[in-house]
Amino acid sequence: MYLTQGLHRCVQQAPGRTAIVFGERSLTFGELHVRVEKLAGALQTLGMKSGDRVSMLALNSDRYLEYLLGVWWGGGVLNPVNIRWSVPEIVYSLDDCDTGILIVDDHFLPMAPAIAEGAQRRPVLIYAGEKAAPEGMLSYEQLLAAAEPVADAFRGGNDLAAIMYTGGTTGRPKGVMQSHLNLWSSAVSRMAEFRSYDTTISLHAAPLFHTAAMARAVGHFIAGDTHVVLPVFDPRAVLESIERDRVEEILLVPTMLQAVLEHPEFSKRDLGSLKRIYYGASPISAGVLDKALAALPGIEFFHAYGLTEASPVVAVNPPANHLGAARESGLYRSVGRAGLGVTVRIVDAEGAEVPRNTVGEIVVRGANVMQGYWNKPAETAQALRDGWLYTGDGAYMDDNGYLFIVDRLKDMIVSGGENVYSAEVENVLSRHPDVAQCAVIGIPDARWGEAVHAVVVLRPGCESSEERLRAHCRQFIAGYKCPKSVEFRDAMPLSAAGKILKRDLRAPWWSKQSRQVG
Amino acid sequence: MYLTQGLHRCVQQAPGRTAIVFGERSLTFGELHVRVEKLAGALQTLGMKSGDRVSMLALNSDRYLEYLLGVWWGGGVLNPVNIRWSVPEIVYSLDDCDTGILIVDDHFLPMAPAIAEGAQRRPVLIYAGEKAAPEGMLSYEQLLAAAEPVADAFRGGNDLAAIMYTGGTTGRPKGVMQSHLNLWSSAVSRMAEFRSYDTTISLHAAPLFHTAAMARAVGHFIAGDTHVVLPVFDPRAVLESIERDRVEEILLVPTMLQAVLEHPEFSKRDLGSLKRIYYGASPISAGVLDKALAALPGIEFFHAYGLTEASPVVAVNPPANHLGAARESGLYRSVGRAGLGVTVRIVDAEGAEVPRNTVGEIVVRGANVMQGYWNKPAETAQALRDGWLYTGDGAYMDDNGYLFIVDRLKDMIVSGGENVYSAEVENVLSRHPDVAQCAVIGIPDARWGEAVHAVVVLRPGCESSEERLRAHCRQFIAGYKCPKSVEFRDAMPLSAAGKILKRDLRAPWWSKQSRQVG
Repeated sequence: MYLTQGLHRCVQQAPGRTAIVFGERSLTFGELHVRVEKLAGALQTLGMKSGDRVSMLALNSDRYLEYLLGVWWGGGVLNPVNIRWSVPEIVYSLDDCDTGILIVDDHFLPMAPAIAEGAQRRPVLIYAGEKAAPEGMLSYEQLLAAAEPVADAFRGGNDLAAIMYTGGTTGRPKGVMQSHLNLWSSAVSRMAEFRSYDTTISLHAAPLFHTAAMARAVGHFIAGDTHVVLPVFDPRAVLESIERDRVEEILLVPTMLQAVLEHPEFSKRDLGSLKRIYYGASPISAGVLDKALAALPGIEFFHAYGLTEASPVVAVNPPANHLGAARESGLYRSVGRAGLGVTVRIVDAEGAEVPRNTVGEIVVRGANVMQGYWNKPAETAQALRDGWLYTGDGAYMDDNGYLFIVDRLKDMIVSGGENVYSAEVENVLSRHPDVAQCAVIGIPDARWGEAVHAVVVLRPGCESSEERLRAHCRQFIAGYKCPKSVEFRDAMPLSAAGKILKRDLRAPWWSKQSRQVG
Repeated sequence: MYLTQGLHRCVQQAPGRTAIVFGERSLTFGELHVRVEKLAGALQTLGMKSGDRVSMLALNSDRYLEYLLGVWWGGGVLNPVNIRWSVPEIVYSLDDCDTGILIVDDHFLPMAPAIAEGAQRRPVLIYAGEKAAPEGMLSYEQLLAAAEPVADAFRGGNDLAAIMYTGGTTGRPKGVMQSHLNLWSSAVSRMAEFRSYDTTISLHAAPLFHTAAMARAVGHFIAGDTHVVLPVFDPRAVLESIERDRVEEILLVPTMLQAVLEHPEFSKRDLGSLKRIYYGASPISAGVLDKALAALPGIEFFHAYGLTEASPVVAVNPPANHLGAARESGLYRSVGRAGLGVTVRIVDAEGAEVPRNTVGEIVVRGANVMQGYWNKPAETAQALRDGWLYTGDGAYMDDNGYLFIVDRLKDMIVSGGENVYSAEVENVLSRHPDVAQCAVIGIPDARWGEAVHAVVVLRPGCESSEERLRAHCRQFIAGYKCPKSVEFRDAMPLSAAGKILKRDLRAPWWSKQSRQVG
């Protein structure tokens, strides 16, 4: 298979259907097909050969989706650049995967000269903004206007489709090598398991450079769905777009979902078209889930668990487990069961499967598992062992196969010889009515090795104290799991994907100490 | 991916769910898993190495499904033997793919000695019947009882999964090489496109050696569905099983469907559990479809079009096109549109795409396309060109991408320089109230090269004449397309898959002449 296949199918069967809506602009599949054929031709003319990397540093747009398809159509490999990165980080990734072409939009134009200067191989710069191209850069629209359309290169199967640099929440960025088969397998397996409708209208509010959003775009390309695109996440824009574009489906990480639910416009917009919300990237708190379920009755919630190395989905917790008896039993806190086409085990440090309800590391096998890390054979050998992907995620599996993530293994706090899983403490803290957001980390402690430390953002207008929150926790969990200290902040440091950056929270505490990992 | 993946998932998530029902016997997924692990171990002990072929010559049974999974679990490759074949044909195929092990049931026991004698490499014979194993054969159940369970060999992806010999309706049997990816892709893509339910109860009434039934079993394995198995197709047994086993889904080729509809028990059985009927292998006549739709209101009909070389599905015509305005417009006669994950074009003799509504040859591209014909590089090169599978099926595509098969290209009749497509004439003939079945072939004609000849089976109690049927045809199609001669028979020669064997109908006419193909 090849990731352009859905486009071939749509242009044959429904060329007039809307493919992309971006603000005032929209494209049918027939129009998208023409632009993709031309973009592929332009990139080839600029030197893109089979398997060459092409990077894009941009907010979401219709052109971002054209970039995905156009590079594949022309036989190239994607390198979507993390939009939160600094110039040195971007230069590192461009050098690492030897990018020959970089597409930049208006928002990132100021960084382009420094990136081009810094890179060992100066990339051809394409300006995909809304004005005239600056000197030294080629105009995306002029390239398309002048280009000859080319035939699909039909790269596919085990051919490399994308190099996705991992978020950078831990260590040096690694380029995850995702093949056409990896991405196709993950997307089609999810559709086989959960899709119960023909085509849908889907909103991209999360950044497309991130594997969760990009892989979702892949699924929509395969199915022939309509993509509605927002440049960046903004709760008001999300609400407006749902109403205006009759959006049926959206992916929102919990911090985004919370912002949408709490926005003043929430109750003023007609959200009747919305049918499904996918969430993931981080666990949802009981409080946010309750509020969401109350505010959007009838909506289906899917929790997808995955990682870039699994292209990305490993498990999905379906809507039924967010409701009724399954909800009451706590099943909503599961990330779901091994997805269709994916095999999952929980293993000990030696790689042996552990009994049910025992915490260990999640390992994954399937066509969705990455080919390895680009240029990093040692890290690849560490992650891929005997055909299994070692995720680094700690979890247990219940008797019915449901996975409960306890924490990133490296985030587990070891205090006085006891294991404390941050997620458990966070879950309790988040139930306190004053708490808007929280994160629990381990900090150095002379007596216990590590101490449990909570960082908390309070709801607007609320006040609280360390002692009050500790007393709340003591009601639900053992004393050694309760925060020894609590720090109040106005906001959390967030990754581009909306994940709380625990690394940043930990950094000031651990800068002069080495931390023991679980 | 690997075709044992569904079993891993079911045994982890729902080991107590019913996997197989065969008469009075049934197995849970947990029990099936144990038997598969042991069968794989027994086969390895008997010499099956990675990639070795294991054959089975048997009617459908629970053990046939164990054979599929057990061979894959142990790392072997299937060679399911055509149950209509004579000893020399079977010996040819066993020799061709160098089979080391042959599993035989009670029904085919009498053929086993001659097959073992005839084969160049005498296979190990395993008796999978209901009595004590005959001398010189190993007992399937005793092998399982004594075997050590083994771990999954995890062969998958592009590894060979099965050699499926094509039906033999034309020429010498060819061993179609289907990989794990081929079969997985075809099954999962269909589920992604059409599945709108969790697990289902599915009846196997068509022979499992055939690619349509075997590939359906693959899909049910992936989804974790319950398989109900009949040893052979029998309309009364089908009706009884639907009622007793609460069957929800069934695959029936049109001749089988007709037999079920016309059986005296039809109106006496509770068929309320039945939700979906898949048909294919040959077109359905308007008469049979009308009867089926009237008798089973609310049932969903799916017409799947495919071929062994496409593992097998190319297109599916969904339920909506069998009803209402779509039905009236003739869309029910389409075999559907390019399926999800499949790219289809109609091309001319030079391989160039033809305009819509123009007859040409169907070519197919996708992960479902076979790896080639075993040991037949010339035939492989003929079938697979530039990444496209040449199907040999003549068709046109309408403006919305719907495919209309006009005939096997080689079945096209050239009469007086005009092309006559058998399907068109058959479609008209089948509308005559006296006609139960019909087939239209080309026979030698001194003046026209070929003449249109119809073979007809009348409905019970009906009488007709050549002239009456010709007059009927003349109402609907041009004179040169109407049968020049009509032959009345009591029954049609059928392949094991229920296809009318046109080769057999043609043979007496063409034995001394070479036929020009279109």
